[in-house]
Amino acid sequence: MESSSLAQDYEKLLSKYKDVVVLGSATGVIQWDTETKMPRGAFEWRSQQQSLLSRLDQKMATDPEIGALLDRMEKNPGLGAMDEVLRRNLYLIRKDYDEKTKLPERLVAAIARQEVISYQAWHKAKGAKDFNAFKPELERMLELKKEWAHLLMDVKGVKTAYDALIDVFEPKFSQETITAVFDKLRAGLLPVIQKCIDSTSQPDTSVLKRHVPVAVQEKFSKMAMDFIGYETGTPTAKGRLDETEHPFTIGIYDDVRITTHYYEDNFASSVFSVLHEGGHALYDQDLRRDWIYTPVGAPNSFGWHESQSRFVENIVGKSPEFCSFLLPRLKEMTGTSLEDVGLEKFVNALNEVRPSKIRIEADEVTYSLHLIIRFEIERDLLADRITVGELPQAWNQKYRDYLGMEIKDDAEGVLQDVHWAHGYFGYFPSYALGNIYSGHLLSKLGRDMPGWKEGIAQGKFAPVLQWLSGNVHALGNLYDPLVMLKKVTGEEIDPGHFIRYLNEKYSRIYGF
Amino acid sequence: MESSSLAQDYEKLLSKYKDVVVLGSATGVIQWDTETKMPRGAFEWRSQQQSLLSRLDQKMATDPEIGALLDRMEKNPGLGAMDEVLRRNLYLIRKDYDEKTKLPERLVAAIARQEVISYQAWHKAKGAKDFNAFKPELERMLELKKEWAHLLMDVKGVKTAYDALIDVFEPKFSQETITAVFDKLRAGLLPVIQKCIDSTSQPDTSVLKRHVPVAVQEKFSKMAMDFIGYETGTPTAKGRLDETEHPFTIGIYDDVRITTHYYEDNFASSVFSVLHEGGHALYDQDLRRDWIYTPVGAPNSFGWHESQSRFVENIVGKSPEFCSFLLPRLKEMTGTSLEDVGLEKFVNALNEVRPSKIRIEADEVTYSLHLIIRFEIERDLLADRITVGELPQAWNQKYRDYLGMEIKDDAEGVLQDVHWAHGYFGYFPSYALGNIYSGHLLSKLGRDMPGWKEGIAQGKFAPVLQWLSGNVHALGNLYDPLVMLKKVTGEEIDPGHFIRYLNEKYSRIYGF
Repeated sequence: MESSSLAQDYEKLLSKYKDVVVLGSATGVIQWDTETKMPRGAFEWRSQQQSLLSRLDQKMATDPEIGALLDRMEKNPGLGAMDEVLRRNLYLIRKDYDEKTKLPERLVAAIARQEVISYQAWHKAKGAKDFNAFKPELERMLELKKEWAHLLMDVKGVKTAYDALIDVFEPKFSQETITAVFDKLRAGLLPVIQKCIDSTSQPDTSVLKRHVPVAVQEKFSKMAMDFIGYETGTPTAKGRLDETEHPFTIGIYDDVRITTHYYEDNFASSVFSVLHEGGHALYDQDLRRDWIYTPVGAPNSFGWHESQSRFVENIVGKSPEFCSFLLPRLKEMTGTSLEDVGLEKFVNALNEVRPSKIRIEADEVTYSLHLIIRFEIERDLLADRITVGELPQAWNQKYRDYLGMEIKDDAEGVLQDVHWAHGYFGYFPSYALGNIYSGHLLSKLGRDMPGWKEGIAQGKFAPVLQWLSGNVHALGNLYDPLVMLKKVTGEEIDPGHFIRYLNEKYSRIYGF
Repeated sequence: MESSSLAQDYEKLLSKYKDVVVLGSATGVIQWDTETKMPRGAFEWRSQQQSLLSRLDQKMATDPEIGALLDRMEKNPGLGAMDEVLRRNLYLIRKDYDEKTKLPERLVAAIARQEVISYQAWHKAKGAKDFNAFKPELERMLELKKEWAHLLMDVKGVKTAYDALIDVFEPKFSQETITAVFDKLRAGLLPVIQKCIDSTSQPDTSVLKRHVPVAVQEKFSKMAMDFIGYETGTPTAKGRLDETEHPFTIGIYDDVRITTHYYEDNFASSVFSVLHEGGHALYDQDLRRDWIYTPVGAPNSFGWHESQSRFVENIVGKSPEFCSFLLPRLKEMTGTSLEDVGLEKFVNALNEVRPSKIRIEADEVTYSLHLIIRFEIERDLLADRITVGELPQAWNQKYRDYLGMEIKDDAEGVLQDVHWAHGYFGYFPSYALGNIYSGHLLSKLGRDMPGWKEGIAQGKFAPVLQWLSGNVHALGNLYDPLVMLKKVTGEEIDPGHFIRYLNEKYSRIYGF
């Protein structure tokens, strides 16, 4: 009797949760439209639709019937005998429900409103290269997110407000864990960077600046998508490619779309954006069908998502093996513009290591330092060790200390990223964690499938994708990120794999 | 006291209704995406989103709080002193609420499901030119819509099931009224058609078949949109143009999109599709902002909507005056392909009258006969005078009798339109009523602004748009369609205006 009523309650609970998932995916289509196709005069009108959809989500996710079903199931003595999928689904729905019921409607609405206001202020301030125009709105956003974080600390079982914010992107992580991991990461990165800088054999990157028309780069994109097996434009396609200034991926299951950008004096950017977003998209399309619409069936943390995109973009895409497949094809498609370029020269140019000011343009080695800087600043900000007004100064100091860069204005400094305008404090660490996870995956893949790189040189990505599918995608959101890492690799988190990979790769390129 | 609580209730009611309107517009974006951009492998996944959105709409529109607010307001003695806008809003929300609460959830879901099934069966049957493959699904759809209609006859205060179906598209019309109007319309059309057929001066339409590449036709589209003042691609644009096999318009307020199609051997089709859909779009963009989100602020009936599109496409677009503006520009854009074409030859070709089998390809004169045929068949079907199985026979007989056409197979006959697969019985009459309304508007415009055609010849559409805006758009949905006609023109419905317009125009073209 009890296990039968447990099964019935579970079915009802999942059916309620399915609506939340499906509504979220419909909202995703609207977001995609906002970024790609919406007439530019429709922003205000669109914000009405977005705010309604977010209210509906909040209402559906906090439906008292969900609470009643959770209560009843949790008290059911048959629960202990149930499998871990059911128990994880229960845990995840409970977590979402408790958090969302804890937040007053007023605060949810205020944050949604402030996102729009802060975003506009940030956009204007960045154009004017003037942090002060953004400051009051960022202060308001920070206050709201602090209130949000303090309300959820108990429910999330975390010790600090910043931990509550991190938990959104990387569940069960804390600033303490991240500090320890990032200290180790930084210690490993700095010598690699120094050796690259000191090397006498510097790559010649002028080849990457050769002019390639957008129409030709569109063929590059098609080739990159064909390589990874991301289908667009066919009657069975579950993806599509569009153009936006900042590339992104959106969607789940049978409708996962990516975007890229085209710069005629930087043709590699479009190809590697396609590979990066394609890595995200393959994950979202590959979620388990037997777990469809359930929280267990969702992708894992933001860091795990990033591990997939960076694995495809960097570990596969910027490898000599893939370049040996790519370069002849680029030459064919560009006519004469690249015909004199040798493979080694091309690989070295693509993998140039050079400290820079802008995160999204950073190379694979220095990239994580940009995230470590942001993490340390957020940590201090949330602990009231620095104020919003002191952000530019703190930012510029860290860029001097960690990357040796002199920031000239706020646009190339503290205003470069949109995340804080959206209130996404706690998001940045996940980018660097993605690199670390991808190092673990590389090490495991090397053990499981030693010859995988030869396949890549022949343009065969399917075996690697199959491995990622079985080892990462198939686990969905069954475990919190660090437990997931243990399940996949048997290991605790360790930046060592990633650092070793960098040392091996870059010692060859820079001859150290 | 009473009037203050009336005001408060009204505000609450409108705020509830706003959510319904905004959700509908978000659903519209999703529909647009389905038709234009969605990856083709995502149909099944998309149907999950659509079915959820339709359930949410039903739930929001039947919120018991809406019922309570309506009850209280209707009993308020202060109501009689309120203005007609408030009273109309109350009436329209009451109508929607009563209808939607009357329908069992089971029936709503069954119709939604059957729409998908019937559509697929129709699509397949049309490809196979075999009505029998569609028959069982159409029978099921008809049964469901009959059940729907019988449930709503009381609420709608109509006498027959078919009247209930018509009321969705053309409120307060009945098959009796339509029969009387269409009999008069047909009697007026037949002599015009006969004179055109009998004329010795037949247009030479070969000019319209000259090859024009899609890229050039895209410039035609841009010019047509510029002419009517429909803005796309700019930072202030509230519209956009895409390509679909069947052109359509979707959206309201600041986001109203149109589509067209391009046939390289039929260049006029794209221009006039843009003008047709543009006529719809100008109406949807021009809804009164002081009535935003209220039912009074919505566009009027389907027939009134069609009056706008056909006014722009035919009365304006296919006039000699517009052609005198259009042709030199087409010549400029096409290089040499049209340089030998004279204005008269062009106007006559565009306005060829020739009975045909396919509604959407019909000329302005014979077009209404296609609708009259469909109306008469639907009327007999809903009155059980013919069965679904007898449809092809009835269809072919009427095409023989009214248009002298011999239908060879079901694809060019009874299967040509998708409407019945969607369960849209009662929709077709509105297309012909749109022609009749547009005739009334033309007569009134001629009295109000006698020189309007000279402006068109100079490429100036703004004064006409302003007139349509003030006389039609600004009335929103304040009146049922026939009352609206009376308010706009002071007249009862009369196909005579439309018939007179046709006689004047075509006597010149065909010399009778």
